[in-house]
Amino acid sequence: MGSAFSPGLTELIDSLRRLPGVGARTAQRMALHLMQRDRDGARRLAAALSNAADRVGECRDCGILTEQQLCSICSSPKRDRSLLCIVESSADVIALEQATDFSGVYLVLGGQLSPLDGIGPEELGLDRLEQRLAAGQISEIILATSPTVEGEATAHYVREMACEYAVRTTRIAHGVPMGGALEQVDQGTLSHAFLGRQEYGGSSQ
Amino acid sequence: MGSAFSPGLTELIDSLRRLPGVGARTAQRMALHLMQRDRDGARRLAAALSNAADRVGECRDCGILTEQQLCSICSSPKRDRSLLCIVESSADVIALEQATDFSGVYLVLGGQLSPLDGIGPEELGLDRLEQRLAAGQISEIILATSPTVEGEATAHYVREMACEYAVRTTRIAHGVPMGGALEQVDQGTLSHAFLGRQEYGGSSQ
Ligand SMILES: [Zn+2]
Ligand SMILES: [Zn+2]
Repeated sequence: MGSAFSPGLTELIDSLRRLPGVGARTAQRMALHLMQRDRDGARRLAAALSNAADRVGECRDCGILTEQQLCSICSSPKRDRSLLCIVESSADVIALEQATDFSGVYLVLGGQLSPLDGIGPEELGLDRLEQRLAAGQISEIILATSPTVEGEATAHYVREMACEYAVRTTRIAHGVPMGGALEQVDQGTLSHAFLGRQEYGGSSQ
Repeated sequence: MGSAFSPGLTELIDSLRRLPGVGARTAQRMALHLMQRDRDGARRLAAALSNAADRVGECRDCGILTEQQLCSICSSPKRDRSLLCIVESSADVIALEQATDFSGVYLVLGGQLSPLDGIGPEELGLDRLEQRLAAGQISEIILATSPTVEGEATAHYVREMACEYAVRTTRIAHGVPMGGALEQVDQGTLSHAFLGRQEYGGSSQ
């Protein structure tokens, strides 16, 4: 018994196990596949990981992950910058882009309001959102935050802010399962929820 | 529509898709996970891949993947070098090491006899096996090649060679599904098949 893997292969397998959804057996199979049959693939992946880890940051305007100053959405002349969809993560942007034909732009909060954890409006970039609202740059805010307690609190906060500037606020329809992560919803459901978005007001939810 | 991923992220996702069993959606999730939550994991994996791609070769004696001249099995004083188990790949060695308490050593052929593809005995290192047989270094050969046409042909070839030197030849019991890859068999089945290995002779299979 005992491991028959050399230190270099053991380290490779342990590193592969840090990928989401990859267990011990899968990591072994990946490592042996790369070493036996796709060493070019291993080198290419190493370079891509190293490049991305060093260079990927956040878009200056929307906060999505990108190695560019301005992402392809924010720099596109075809996107309507007065329509602003608010999401929690870059994965949410990708999911919406793949499932809908939304022609506006996004704001990636990078999280949810959580005062006890020290995450207030400024940590999420909501102070900059207020500046944009004050400057009259936004005609509709579409809330696509998670249907969790913190996601609801975040949505409420943004709605109150938008109200002050008389900006229309909508919310993607429920259909997204409660407690579910947006990025794991199938495209059909997500598309339906996005198209069926409702006015987001005081008494009705 | 269109990809919202920057070139650096697109390249990372495409590289991750070359891993076995990883589709588009999984590769996206992996890339975003690494960039958002585990950049150290990305750098560590990059280094491990690059190191392994450059340094991993084959053990001088058995041919298993390792960056060392002699693998941990071949260099162990506890292993009986007169018991030789013949397998097709490093993955097979790993599977057997995890499922059995075999105390001998291995020979990794790296393939199967396939004359039409130009793969003869020398390509598989069987000329060196003959030298070891001739030198009287081997008391038992355990055949663990695949139950496929080429695997059978390879097994027959080795058996003929062992016969010339009057070396006992056994074969791991069938129980391994026909046409199945050894590395994908569950440990229990594989352990059973290994313990129930049979004399491998002319008239009986
Ligand atoms: Zn952007
Ligand atoms: Zn070895």
